[in-house]
Amino acid sequence: MSYARKHLASIEGYVPGEQPTDGAYIKLNTNENPYPPSPRVFEAVKNVTGEQLRKYPDAIWRGLRAKISEVYGVAPEGIFVGNGSDEALSLLIRTFVDPGEKVLYMYPSYVLYETLAAISAVEYEDVELDDNFDLPEDAFERKGKIFFVANPNSPTGKPVPPEAIKRLCESFSGIVVADEAYADFGDSSCVDLLGDYPNLMVLRTFSKSFSLASIRVGFALAPDEIIDALMKTKDSYNVNLLSQVAAEAALDDLGHMRDNVEKIKRTRERLINSLRGMGFDVFPSEANFLLARPPGAAAREVYEQLKERKILVRYFPIRRLDDRLRITVGTDAEIDALLSALGEILKT
Amino acid sequence: MSYARKHLASIEGYVPGEQPTDGAYIKLNTNENPYPPSPRVFEAVKNVTGEQLRKYPDAIWRGLRAKISEVYGVAPEGIFVGNGSDEALSLLIRTFVDPGEKVLYMYPSYVLYETLAAISAVEYEDVELDDNFDLPEDAFERKGKIFFVANPNSPTGKPVPPEAIKRLCESFSGIVVADEAYADFGDSSCVDLLGDYPNLMVLRTFSKSFSLASIRVGFALAPDEIIDALMKTKDSYNVNLLSQVAAEAALDDLGHMRDNVEKIKRTRERLINSLRGMGFDVFPSEANFLLARPPGAAAREVYEQLKERKILVRYFPIRRLDDRLRITVGTDAEIDALLSALGEILKT
Repeated sequence: MSYARKHLASIEGYVPGEQPTDGAYIKLNTNENPYPPSPRVFEAVKNVTGEQLRKYPDAIWRGLRAKISEVYGVAPEGIFVGNGSDEALSLLIRTFVDPGEKVLYMYPSYVLYETLAAISAVEYEDVELDDNFDLPEDAFERKGKIFFVANPNSPTGKPVPPEAIKRLCESFSGIVVADEAYADFGDSSCVDLLGDYPNLMVLRTFSKSFSLASIRVGFALAPDEIIDALMKTKDSYNVNLLSQVAAEAALDDLGHMRDNVEKIKRTRERLINSLRGMGFDVFPSEANFLLARPPGAAAREVYEQLKERKILVRYFPIRRLDDRLRITVGTDAEIDALLSALGEILKT
Repeated sequence: MSYARKHLASIEGYVPGEQPTDGAYIKLNTNENPYPPSPRVFEAVKNVTGEQLRKYPDAIWRGLRAKISEVYGVAPEGIFVGNGSDEALSLLIRTFVDPGEKVLYMYPSYVLYETLAAISAVEYEDVELDDNFDLPEDAFERKGKIFFVANPNSPTGKPVPPEAIKRLCESFSGIVVADEAYADFGDSSCVDLLGDYPNLMVLRTFSKSFSLASIRVGFALAPDEIIDALMKTKDSYNVNLLSQVAAEAALDDLGHMRDNVEKIKRTRERLINSLRGMGFDVFPSEANFLLARPPGAAAREVYEQLKERKILVRYFPIRRLDDRLRITVGTDAEIDALLSALGEILKT
C-alpha cells in the first residue's frame, strides 16, 4: 500500500550531477568553484563555541542579513536567506502558487524549476527559447504566478539582457525571479532594478563564486511584501549556525571571491578558444561553465569517453541539448587535462 | 497587491521561544541542552577542508546514514536525514497529505504540527487529551493521513505508553509519527517497534540530547517505502556538509551525550522536588523540561517576574496551558537561580 500523494507516483525527483565518492575524478559536471573559499571561512568556523552550538541558530539571520544588506545595498527586510537557493525556489512555489495556477520557466534552462512545480502539484509550462537560445517575443505575453529566469541561463551560459528583464517585469502579472546563481562570473545583474518593480526577485547563492556549495546558503532580494510572505512559510530555523557563520566570513573577504572569479574567467576564455580551435561550437559564456557542441561526434559518446578517462562533464539527454556538453570551468590544470583528453577522443 | 496564496493571510507562522541576543538571560525556555556537545564535534568541524567546502555535500548523507544505522539498528534505506526535524515534519505533510485530507495531533502538544498543516493548506484536527493529559479512548477511532504523536509529549513531558502507540498503529489508516525529540531523557522509545508496523515513523533530533540545536539535523526512521517518498520530495542537498560532519562526530561519542543526559535527569528530579516543596503542581517528566503550575499566583505573572530577573521560561497563553509554565532543565547553577527567584516572587 502506498501512503504517498498520487501525483508523486510519476515524479522522478531532481537528479543532480554525479558526485563520485572515490576522489579520482576531475569534476567538471556540477559547476562547483575549483578554488577553496576564503581562509576567513575556516577561521570563523573554527571559532564557533559550545555555547553557540548547543543553542538554536538565529531564526532571522541577523548577522548575515546585515552583511548581505551592506554588500548588495538592499535593506535587511528585503532579504531572505535560504538553506541553499533550492529552499527559496521550493518555498516560492509553496508560498505564491495555488493548485491550478502556473509556474513558467525557459526551455532549455535549469530543470529543477519543473521538478519543484511537479512536486508541489501546481501547473507548469516552459517558454521555448529561440534558435539562438534567447527569450522569444512570446515570453512577454505569457501568464502565470512565477516566471523563473536563470540569468545567466544554465546550461547555455547566456545572459538575459536587463532590457528583457525589465519588459518581463512589466508584462508579467506574477513574480519574476531572476536566478543569478552565476551572475558574479558575468557582467549583468538585476540587483540594481530591484527598487523599480514590485514583482522582481533576485536570487543569489554562496555555492558558486564564493566556493561554498557545501554550506547550502542562498538568498533572495525582493520587495518587503514578498519577503514577508516567505518568512511566514519557512521552517523556523532554516539555516544552521555553522553555515551562517561561514557565509558571513565569506562576505568579509570579497577580494578572495573576486580573485577566484577573475582566474576562472581567464581560464574560461582560454577553454572557449581552445575548443573552438578543435571545431567545437561554443556559446560565449557569462557563467563558470559553457555549453559546447563537439564536431563530428555524438556528444554522449564524448561524455562517455571522458568519463572513462576519469573526467566528468554534464550531458543532458534531452531535446536541444543532447548534441552538446556542459563543461564547468575548472583549474588550468584540469582544463589542460580535459583538452588533452578531447584531443585524443576526437582524433580516433 | 498581494502575491501570496490566500490561505496564508490568516496564518501567523510558528513563533519560536524568545532568543535574546544580549546573552544576559538564563534561558530555560527553548529546551536547549545546557551542556556543550562532544569535543569530537569541534575536532570534526575544524578538520573540514577547502576541497570539501567548495563542493556540494553528499545528497544522501552516506556517512551519517551509516552511523545512524549502526546506533539505531535500522538499515540505511530506512533512514531520512532532514535540515532539522522541522524539515522532516513539513516534508511529511507535503509528501503524504493531499488538499482536503487531514493531519491529526494531540492537544495540547507541539504547536508546530498545526502551523505546518495550515501553511500547507491541508485539513487538521486535534485530539483533546484527557484530564491527565493522556491519550483519550477516542484517539483510536480517528481518521487521517498523518497522526503526529510527540513522545514524550511537549509541553507536558509525559510519555505515550508503547501499548498506546501499538494500538494507534493498528487503528490508524495513515502514518503514525512518533516525534521522539526528547526520548533520550526518558525510558520509552518506539524504535524497537519499527519492524512491526508498515505505518510507523520515529523522528529523532540532534538538537536536544546531543546539544546541537545549532546544526539543524533531525532524522526519521521508517519503512523503506515511506522514506523513498521523502527522498523524492526533499531538496537535493538538504543537509549541509558541516552539519553532517558534526552529527557524525556526535554519534562517535555517545558516552558524552549520555553523561549529559544523566546530569540533566538528576537536576530534573531535584527541580521537581523543590518545586513541589514550594507548592507547584508538577507532572513527572521524561524530557529535559517540565510543566509546572504555580501555587496561588497567575502563571503569566510568574513568567513576567522571572523575565524581569533575566530568567526566561516558556508561558503558553492558550487553553489548558495558561495556568502553567514550561521550564527547561538547565545546569544546577541555573536551576538554583530559578528556585531562588521563584522563592522571592511567590513570597510577595
